[in-house]
Amino acid sequence: MSTISSTRDVISSERVEGTAVYNAAGEKLGTIDDLMIDKVSGQVRYAVMEFGGFLGIGTDRYPVPWSMLKYDTAQDGYVVPLDKDKLQGAPRYAGDSVPDYDDAYSSTINKYYGF
Amino acid sequence: MSTISSTRDVISSERVEGTAVYNAAGEKLGTIDDLMIDKVSGQVRYAVMEFGGFLGIGTDRYPVPWSMLKYDTAQDGYVVPLDKDKLQGAPRYAGDSVPDYDDAYSSTINKYYGF
Repeated sequence: MSTISSTRDVISSERVEGTAVYNAAGEKLGTIDDLMIDKVSGQVRYAVMEFGGFLGIGTDRYPVPWSMLKYDTAQDGYVVPLDKDKLQGAPRYAGDSVPDYDDAYSSTINKYYGF
Repeated sequence: MSTISSTRDVISSERVEGTAVYNAAGEKLGTIDDLMIDKVSGQVRYAVMEFGGFLGIGTDRYPVPWSMLKYDTAQDGYVVPLDKDKLQGAPRYAGDSVPDYDDAYSSTINKYYGF
């Protein structure tokens, strides 16, 4: 896949954009557009997803807590327990206006998804 | 800084390239060119660095275990305990020929840096 590094266990930050995201039924929901990485620990905190072309909900970006993603080796992509209904009220922003991921915004995301 | 997201605690994977790397004396050694992220855990395993313009050791990329990097809030960059001597024999590759980060290559990197 052009969007995944050829490596086995790791993905290059340069290649993250475009990694596929599926629902539990194996249907492609969209793609990862960006990752938000903790500067100190190096742990990915949020996957920023785009679902527009698939769920018909526009081109906004949706930050989702990393712990909601499960990597599926067979599909070489991520599975997330999300559907159109859940995303209707989810935190989002336009791709060209990334908000400040401060404590308040992080709290907003985490609360929405029940963390 | 243009290479750092405006967010406080996280950095966007899209903005990683160009993040500054310093030595313990506060001298700029180079920049982060890429991050290699564990697909499953979301933990950054390696920072891929370029030192060419600063240490005069060419434009090769040097993968360094993430745990060697300390984030310095004052400089908004990373400090690594590396010098030209240590890098002379370090694992490296041309920027346009990223190797397969399999177990053998990971082991080569980790052993070189004493992990």
